[in-house]
Amino acid sequence: MTSSFDFAPLFPAGLPAPSARWTGLAKYSFVGGNNDSEQVPLEGLIEATNLVLQREGRSLATYGLAHGPQGYLPLREFLVTKLERDARINCTVDDLMIVSGSLQALDLVNAALLARGDTVIFEQESYQGSLTRLARLGVNVVGIPLDEDGMRMDVLASTLADLKSRGIRPKYIYTIPTVQNPTGSIMPESRRAELLRLSTEYGVPIFEDDCYADLVWSGQRPPAIYAMSPNGGVIHIGSFSKSIAPALRVGFVVAPWEVMSRMLALKTDAGSGALEQMVLATYCKPHFSAHVPALTKALRTKLDTLMEALNEQFGTAAEFEEPKGGIFLWVKLPDKVDTLKLYQAALAAGVSINPGPEWSTNKSHSSSRLRLCFASPTHQQIREGIAVLADICRKEFGVPARSANVEKPA
Amino acid sequence: MTSSFDFAPLFPAGLPAPSARWTGLAKYSFVGGNNDSEQVPLEGLIEATNLVLQREGRSLATYGLAHGPQGYLPLREFLVTKLERDARINCTVDDLMIVSGSLQALDLVNAALLARGDTVIFEQESYQGSLTRLARLGVNVVGIPLDEDGMRMDVLASTLADLKSRGIRPKYIYTIPTVQNPTGSIMPESRRAELLRLSTEYGVPIFEDDCYADLVWSGQRPPAIYAMSPNGGVIHIGSFSKSIAPALRVGFVVAPWEVMSRMLALKTDAGSGALEQMVLATYCKPHFSAHVPALTKALRTKLDTLMEALNEQFGTAAEFEEPKGGIFLWVKLPDKVDTLKLYQAALAAGVSINPGPEWSTNKSHSSSRLRLCFASPTHQQIREGIAVLADICRKEFGVPARSANVEKPA
Repeated sequence: MTSSFDFAPLFPAGLPAPSARWTGLAKYSFVGGNNDSEQVPLEGLIEATNLVLQREGRSLATYGLAHGPQGYLPLREFLVTKLERDARINCTVDDLMIVSGSLQALDLVNAALLARGDTVIFEQESYQGSLTRLARLGVNVVGIPLDEDGMRMDVLASTLADLKSRGIRPKYIYTIPTVQNPTGSIMPESRRAELLRLSTEYGVPIFEDDCYADLVWSGQRPPAIYAMSPNGGVIHIGSFSKSIAPALRVGFVVAPWEVMSRMLALKTDAGSGALEQMVLATYCKPHFSAHVPALTKALRTKLDTLMEALNEQFGTAAEFEEPKGGIFLWVKLPDKVDTLKLYQAALAAGVSINPGPEWSTNKSHSSSRLRLCFASPTHQQIREGIAVLADICRKEFGVPARSANVEKPA
Repeated sequence: MTSSFDFAPLFPAGLPAPSARWTGLAKYSFVGGNNDSEQVPLEGLIEATNLVLQREGRSLATYGLAHGPQGYLPLREFLVTKLERDARINCTVDDLMIVSGSLQALDLVNAALLARGDTVIFEQESYQGSLTRLARLGVNVVGIPLDEDGMRMDVLASTLADLKSRGIRPKYIYTIPTVQNPTGSIMPESRRAELLRLSTEYGVPIFEDDCYADLVWSGQRPPAIYAMSPNGGVIHIGSFSKSIAPALRVGFVVAPWEVMSRMLALKTDAGSGALEQMVLATYCKPHFSAHVPALTKALRTKLDTLMEALNEQFGTAAEFEEPKGGIFLWVKLPDKVDTLKLYQAALAAGVSINPGPEWSTNKSHSSSRLRLCFASPTHQQIREGIAVLADICRKEFGVPARSANVEKPA
C-alpha cells in the first residue's frame, strides 16, 4: 500500500521515539534475561500440554477459562504451595494474580500507586525496565547505594528522613532482594527486618521483585520480605521467566486486597494467556522442585566459564563480585572505559552487552560497568564472545593491555 | 498476613473503582465474547503443540523466540496469506505485529494517537471495551448512528464538517465494519469507499476492528477497508479469539510503519505469549480455512435456537435484525424496559446479559436494548435461559405479556 497519509500531526506530545526495525540478536548475545535453551524442560512441558489440553482444553472457549481475572486456579494453587515452601509466604489463591510476565506486574503496581511527579526509592543499580517505566511516567527515582548485602539501610534511613523533612512521602521502596539485578547479591534476613522497620516508620510500602529468587546457587534463600512483614505493607511479584522460560509470558503478584482490587480494575486485558498458565501449572506441580536445581547447576557452570573467560581475557581489568545466583554478572572495567561507547563498538563486532548506565540511577558510578547475561550463550560462545569483547575494549580504550597472558598492542 | 498497612493515602486521583471479588459465571451466561466449547479444535491444537514444541521448543529460552517484538514469524506469515485471501489485504510480515489479544491493540493504538481532551468518532453502538478505554483516557467520543449497512455516511459527513468548523480534528474513526459489534451488520463495499473518501477529505485515519470478520454466515465478506485505502490512512486489527479460542490471548495489528514504530516503542511487555503464537501458527496454516466454516455453521444453529427462543418467550416484545455473522444478537425490548435494571434482576436469577447502554454512546436509544452472546451457552441453556429472562422481564416490567403462547400474569 502507498502510505501517503501523514500520521505525524496526530501523535500526542511526549510519545517515545519510534522503534527501529528488528535486526536480530547479536552473534554473541550477553543481553537481556534470556535463558539456557538446553535447560528448557521440553519433554515435561510437552507431556503437561497433552495432559491438560486433553483434560480441559475445551475451556479455552471461555475468557480466562472462567477462572476469573486473577488467573488459572491450579496455577495459583501451585504458587501458594511454592511460595510457602520457598519464600515462607503464607497466602491464599485470592491474594494472587497471574499476569503476563512480571513486566505487567510492574505496570499494574505503578498504575495503582503512581502519578506524575511522585517519588519512589530504588536500589541504585536496578532493573532497566523498571527505571525506564518510571522515567516515562514522570516519576522521580531516588537511588540507594548497594553493598554486598544489597540496599544500604543507613543511606535508606537518612534518605527517608530527608524526604520527609521536605514533605515527600515516597510511594514505594522497590527492591530486588533475592539475587539482585544486576549485582546478584542476596539481602540477609536481618537487613530485610531493618527495611521493614523503616517501611513501617515512614509509611512507605515495599515493592519486592523476586523474579530471580528461584535461581540461588546454594538452594537456600531468606524468607521473602512479604512473608516477614508485620503489617501487610508489601507487594510481592515473581515470574516463571527465569525458572522455566522467558518466552512464556507468565508472572504473578501477591498483594493485599486493598491493592489487588485496584490492580484488577486496571487489568483490562481479559486475562493472561491461558494455555501458558495451564501448561505451567500442570508441569510445575510435579516437576518444579526437581527442575530448578538442575537449571541452577547448569547456570552455575556457565557463570564459571564466564568468570574464567573474563580473567583470561581482561585479567585484573575486569572486577566483579561472584553473584549468589541468577543469570547475570555485573562487571567493573577501568574508569576510562565508557560502556555506552563499548556497547556500540562491541555490537558492530557481533557482541551485545548491557551498558551499566542503563542499569543505574548513578550514571558516573555505572559508566565503566556492564551487565553480562551468561545463561543464554553456550560455553563456547561465552569464551569466544569475551575474547572479542576484550579485543574491542582494547582497541577503543587501551585496556586490557594483556589478554590470555599475551601482551597486546593498544 | 494481618494487613494493617493503609494504602489508601497512596492511591493517585482518578483511579477506577476497586474490582469486586470474582464470583463465577452465571448459570445462563449470555455475556462477553465467549465461544462454543464444542468447537474448540482440540485435537488439532494438541497435534500442533506437539509438533511445534518438538521442533523448536528450546527457543522458548529466548524472549520472543528471537523473532523480535512484532511476534513469531510463522504466525505473521500465516496472517499475510490469510489476510490476502480473506480480506484482500496486501501486506508483509513487517506490517504486522502480534499482540496479546486485540485489546492490547486497542491500548497501543490509543497510546500512539490519543491525549486527554482529544476527540474520536465511533459507531453509536460499539464495543464496550473500546468505549470504557476512551472514557478512562478522557477522550471525547462522538457516536454516529447505524443502519442495516453500518455507520451512516450522511451523519458522518455532517459530523466531520461540524467538528472541522469548530477546529476539531478527530484522531480516528473507529469502526467494526465486518460483523459489527453489537448489531451484526456488514458494511458494503460502496459504503467503505465512501468512508475512505471522507477519511481522506478530513485527514482522519480509520481504525478498523475486524475481530469478528471470520464469522460470516455466507463465507463472503467485502475487502477490508485497509485493503481499499488509497493512502494508507488505516490501522487494521484482528484476533484469533473469535475464530479459535478467546482464552488464547492472541491478536494482531496491521499498520503503516509510521504508526507501527510508535506502537513498538510503547509495547514494553517483552512480547506476547510465545507458546500460544507457536501453536496457532502451526494449527492455522493447514487447518484454519476448514475450521472456520465448521465453526460458523455451529454458531448459526445456535443463533437460530436463540431467535426461536426469543420469539417463543417474548413474541413481538423482542425485536431484532438477524445478524450476518458473529456471536451476538442485538435485541430491542419495549421502551419501558430498562435493561440496566433487567441486568441486575436477571443476574439474581442466574441469567447474565449485556445491557445496551454499556454498548452505546446514546443512552436513551440503547436503554431498552441488550446484547446476547449465543456462542457460549448450549442450545438447551439458550432455551432455558431465555425463558427465565422472559419471566424476570415480565415480573419487573410487565412484558412480555405472553410467553410460549400462554398468557402470563404481569
